[in-house]
Amino acid sequence: MSFFRLDGRKRTPLFVQLYEAVREAILKGELKPSTRIPSSRDLMNQLGVSRTTVVTAMDRLVAEGYLQSVRGSGTFVSCELPNESPFTLPTSARQAPAKQVNLDSPRNLELSEVSEYGHGLSSIDLATLATGSPQPFCPGEPALDSFPIEVWSKIVRSIWKKVNAFDLSYGEPGGQLLLKKSVAEYLQSQRGVRCDSSQVMIVNGTQQAVELVSRILINPKDKLLFENPGYVSARETFEKQGADIVPMRVDENGAVVDEGIQLAPKAKLAYVTPSHQYPLGVTMPIERRLELLAWAAKSGGWILEDDYDSEYRYGQNPIPSLQGLDTFDRTLYVGSFSKVVFPALGLGYIIVPRQLIPIFENALRLTSRPASQMDQLVLTEFIREGHFGRHLRRMRKIHSERRKAFVEAVESDLSEHLRIIGSMAGLHCTALLRQRRSDKNLVKKLTEHGIITRALSTFYKRSTNKQDHLNGLVMGFASATPSKIRKSLQLAAKCF
Amino acid sequence: MSFFRLDGRKRTPLFVQLYEAVREAILKGELKPSTRIPSSRDLMNQLGVSRTTVVTAMDRLVAEGYLQSVRGSGTFVSCELPNESPFTLPTSARQAPAKQVNLDSPRNLELSEVSEYGHGLSSIDLATLATGSPQPFCPGEPALDSFPIEVWSKIVRSIWKKVNAFDLSYGEPGGQLLLKKSVAEYLQSQRGVRCDSSQVMIVNGTQQAVELVSRILINPKDKLLFENPGYVSARETFEKQGADIVPMRVDENGAVVDEGIQLAPKAKLAYVTPSHQYPLGVTMPIERRLELLAWAAKSGGWILEDDYDSEYRYGQNPIPSLQGLDTFDRTLYVGSFSKVVFPALGLGYIIVPRQLIPIFENALRLTSRPASQMDQLVLTEFIREGHFGRHLRRMRKIHSERRKAFVEAVESDLSEHLRIIGSMAGLHCTALLRQRRSDKNLVKKLTEHGIITRALSTFYKRSTNKQDHLNGLVMGFASATPSKIRKSLQLAAKCF
Repeated sequence: MSFFRLDGRKRTPLFVQLYEAVREAILKGELKPSTRIPSSRDLMNQLGVSRTTVVTAMDRLVAEGYLQSVRGSGTFVSCELPNESPFTLPTSARQAPAKQVNLDSPRNLELSEVSEYGHGLSSIDLATLATGSPQPFCPGEPALDSFPIEVWSKIVRSIWKKVNAFDLSYGEPGGQLLLKKSVAEYLQSQRGVRCDSSQVMIVNGTQQAVELVSRILINPKDKLLFENPGYVSARETFEKQGADIVPMRVDENGAVVDEGIQLAPKAKLAYVTPSHQYPLGVTMPIERRLELLAWAAKSGGWILEDDYDSEYRYGQNPIPSLQGLDTFDRTLYVGSFSKVVFPALGLGYIIVPRQLIPIFENALRLTSRPASQMDQLVLTEFIREGHFGRHLRRMRKIHSERRKAFVEAVESDLSEHLRIIGSMAGLHCTALLRQRRSDKNLVKKLTEHGIITRALSTFYKRSTNKQDHLNGLVMGFASATPSKIRKSLQLAAKCF
Repeated sequence: MSFFRLDGRKRTPLFVQLYEAVREAILKGELKPSTRIPSSRDLMNQLGVSRTTVVTAMDRLVAEGYLQSVRGSGTFVSCELPNESPFTLPTSARQAPAKQVNLDSPRNLELSEVSEYGHGLSSIDLATLATGSPQPFCPGEPALDSFPIEVWSKIVRSIWKKVNAFDLSYGEPGGQLLLKKSVAEYLQSQRGVRCDSSQVMIVNGTQQAVELVSRILINPKDKLLFENPGYVSARETFEKQGADIVPMRVDENGAVVDEGIQLAPKAKLAYVTPSHQYPLGVTMPIERRLELLAWAAKSGGWILEDDYDSEYRYGQNPIPSLQGLDTFDRTLYVGSFSKVVFPALGLGYIIVPRQLIPIFENALRLTSRPASQMDQLVLTEFIREGHFGRHLRRMRKIHSERRKAFVEAVESDLSEHLRIIGSMAGLHCTALLRQRRSDKNLVKKLTEHGIITRALSTFYKRSTNKQDHLNGLVMGFASATPSKIRKSLQLAAKCF
């Protein structure tokens, strides 16, 4: 075994070098099964290393099964090693490739190697799923520069002062009881949601909520009513799950419910954003809400109400949730703390009808660890000490100022090109293009100047007739200060 | 409208009381569409409230679409409200129940209302999925009493001192780059894993890892080799996804790979715990590892290596991962920080073969928000400042002492009843019953005395012939101090 080169100047200890060298020789078949290994003394002399080095390396090789020690006769390369191993198989050992997955991947992947779901994931247009980042005019981003970091980190410190082994342990799937209670109280009083804490499931943001709802309620080929244009990430989640998406037109009163119901009276679920339609920003009035609820009650369909940014409404009180009108328990209500606390928290919730509680709890057990226990403790304190309410009132004011600055700047600098709709609520609005032109090209051009917007046309289901697309820019107005907003819009004006 | 009773002593403001009363009357059909609402002055007089109260309530009802204001002629109940609403439908409106889901649920749920997956979730035996809690002898629970809370919370404080808007924003699916790099370096040097940081996906614990692997690779009815007995939560995840579980027998060398391969040569995936079989605690030697790898390379199958507690190995160095021997990129490697940092963190990782990176990243985008950004930042610092390495060395010592105390106490107090296997690694071992008796009954009896263990027989796939079950107790030895361990085992001895 004198062909092993050990090097005392390397950072890897000599015994590890010896272990690795022998292991490699065995794996590659250079040391054949049953080959006798020289004695420790011989190895010491041949390699010029200490006895400890040799013994430690050999013990490890024996422990892992590369070598076998036979009392009285010495140490041998294991005779139980299989003839075939990844190290002796030719690289061509694998069967000829079947149909390949179309992915920008360094190696080829066969279709049969992944599931249908896995295969479907290769066709997502990632650009449309990009999450916001704190720059104008990314939708969905609140005024993070105004978050009370001091208050929050004070709670963090106080929590860590009293942490015990129990807090460090595994948490309950579905969230901590105190947080569930706080969320239930908040939603009852502020959003008119009908629920108690047992119906609250704490999840990792809206995406996990939609994913769970999709898995638990939707079988492949089930029909699903979905706003068009609508929230792309949610639609993709349902589509990849195999749902048959039936697009519902959206007008100035939100989803046109009666048309949708006529298209798919037996739909399994209807996904809606009644408080502030995403992306058009309009609000669904009471008559459509009642129509939708009556449909669900009669047909046994479900409603998924995504109330993603309803806390912010300008010049009026927030409109109570649709769920609060549902006396038949057909509505699942989804919300998140990303826009009212901060996105990095990644905490959201689903309010599930009572009859679905056990299934959701089991699903949460099987699909994920619960969200960060420490974040849950801190958020609970933040709510219970009244900071959340104060923060929300402050953010309403700040967002309202930014919205005003945004709307005024568009009207003064860009009114010949853009017409704003749906700016009465939330953190974004949609600016329709007055001229017929490609919003995608415009978004590209703006991006080149460091201005981030989304093309309205990308929110439509791909199969929609292009003539029915509205063209426009979906723009967040909450993440930048009024002066930054004005400057960025002046810059944007030059791109038209 | 004098029948509305407003009460100034209630906490609810008068305008809200008026709003709610009118709304309810409209929803219940007591106020019919097109009914004229008295003037503000009349309402003020009738109800004995201020003009502001009346106007605020009426404005809100108009904004939400309950009332319509016609200039010059007054305010009317909206004539657009549908005849059918949840409030006018009889409770019997729903169709006759089809086959019902068997759930301990307050209301009946029809089979057709949930997906097959959702329906499957009603048949989980929750007891077997219970997560640990810090008491003897819950498996999977580290020595949380020895966690360096001071060090960790110091890092938390320092992170919060330099937090900026970017840190509060949405994070990258799959985890923060610096954490991915730290994990890759750790796994390369300590577990012999072949990977770079792009292959690291940060997830919410092992359960999310298994869930993602299952969804991305497994179609319903795909055959899947699974250790028997094995990790129940992972098996349930695959089963609920529709996989056809082919049980692999486990002997003193871990899963009997050649038997498994003979049963299902075309299996899509093999799930194994080669470092420390769960629950039996044995280690898979090199020859079986090579056999499994050769099978995967030739058949195009996948291997899921769950390396859940391999960091702890007593009297020997940890055995390098199976993934590190896989030159054909067929192995997905899963681990978690629950047992080496603390479970409340809920952070884990999957190392995916390069060709699967884009699919996993898309799946993470669509199924969940990334794990807590703050926890990721803190963990990264904990690793990079060397605390993680120090903590691990300290925990190895502490766990080793507890293991010793446990094994010695069983030998002195319980040796006529129990025989320990698989205690050379990890945080638990299995104590086989020397007498043929029901381990489930024993577990129940012990639980009555406050001693938490798991029955080995519950780790077998339900269809397994009961004669092939080993009966025993799966017991964690890491969460309690040596003296607590001795006391609890003395108490346990009385239950036999």
